Amino acid sequence: MSHLLPVELPKAYRLLNHGPTVLVSSAAHGQRNIMAAAWAMPLDFDPPKVLVVVDRNTLTRELMEASGVFALQAPSTEQAQLTMDVGTCSGRDGDKFSQLAIASHVGSVIDVPLADGCLAYLECRIIDEPHNQQRYDLFIGEVVAARADSRAFSQGRWHFEGDAPRSLHYVAGGSFFATGEAFSVNGSADGE
Amino acid sequence: MSHLLPVELPKAYRLLNHGPTVLVSSAAHGQRNIMAAAWAMPLDFDPPKVLVVVDRNTLTRELMEASGVFALQAPSTEQAQLTMDVGTCSGRDGDKFSQLAIASHVGSVIDVPLADGCLAYLECRIIDEPHNQQRYDLFIGEVVAARADSRAFSQGRWHFEGDAPRSLHYVAGGSFFATGEAFSVNGSADGE
Repeated sequence: MSHLLPVELPKAYRLLNHGPTVLVSSAAHGQRNIMAAAWAMPLDFDPPKVLVVVDRNTLTRELMEASGVFALQAPSTEQAQLTMDVGTCSGRDGDKFSQLAIASHVGSVIDVPLADGCLAYLECRIIDEPHNQQRYDLFIGEVVAARADSRAFSQGRWHFEGDAPRSLHYVAGGSFFATGEAFSVNGSADGE
Repeated sequence: MSHLLPVELPKAYRLLNHGPTVLVSSAAHGQRNIMAAAWAMPLDFDPPKVLVVVDRNTLTRELMEASGVFALQAPSTEQAQLTMDVGTCSGRDGDKFSQLAIASHVGSVIDVPLADGCLAYLECRIIDEPHNQQRYDLFIGEVVAARADSRAFSQGRWHFEGDAPRSLHYVAGGSFFATGEAFSVNGSADGE
């Protein structure tokens, strides 16, 4: 994991700003899980907060509510099949990390298993909002640690070049878009 | 606008599922406005709901709260400068549609001005959640009408090919990613 470098927290929103599909990791009472979520995005800059929609019938939901924490991961184009696979089986039918042979490491702050090889990791503590959780399956997390693969994200920006792995954007039925070409228009100079 | 076709509401989430940056239109008491938002995503399938973060200091916020409605638009790569421009000036300093010469049409159900030439339009009624709005600048909308450019979205899927306009993913400081190449992995056959 030598390419992983910390991302300063006020820039952590940049990891999700372009709308990538994520993986959600969770763990509690001796169980662990990982699922895919197309519905995740930043909610605030500093302290950074994120939103993620997690269906009430999932094991991930149960583990998140038991532990009060979760982690988001931005998988790469090389992990598209993995993203699809963890999104189409249930952790209730057996440990996905074992069944799918997913190499993992533990978060730097949060005790959840993270899939090796992702482009970015955001470790989050749940800001408890029972109404959102119960009515909309919507969770708010405060990002307490963020790291990214320095080959793809540096100086607060994603840099995807040529055939190097890119982030993913889920469509449906196993179809994805890769994050595409970067381009600029006239904008503010401060990078905001 | 002859290429615009209705999108059936249970498929409306597909317009935002891949995480594009959007424009937000609003109107109330004789004023109208349009702004950019990187933080918008689906919240539910059917009836379709969306989330969008709208800062409390914006005119858009004031108009949304006065009218109870808004519309999201998915701009194309050809509209990146427009997206940047409406995101960096305030409607409080004058009508953006006039100042930026934005051609527009009125929503099919909601009375807000929509920028011509976008790839998709989602017209929404606000589901009032005062706590989310006040604490997190977070709005929930129920999508009551959806349309898309049939050259880019048909049969419930985006189809971006070659040099045709694509949707946008905002980075920062005037930088964007275009939606990239489509690819598939082994997945569920039902398209879900």
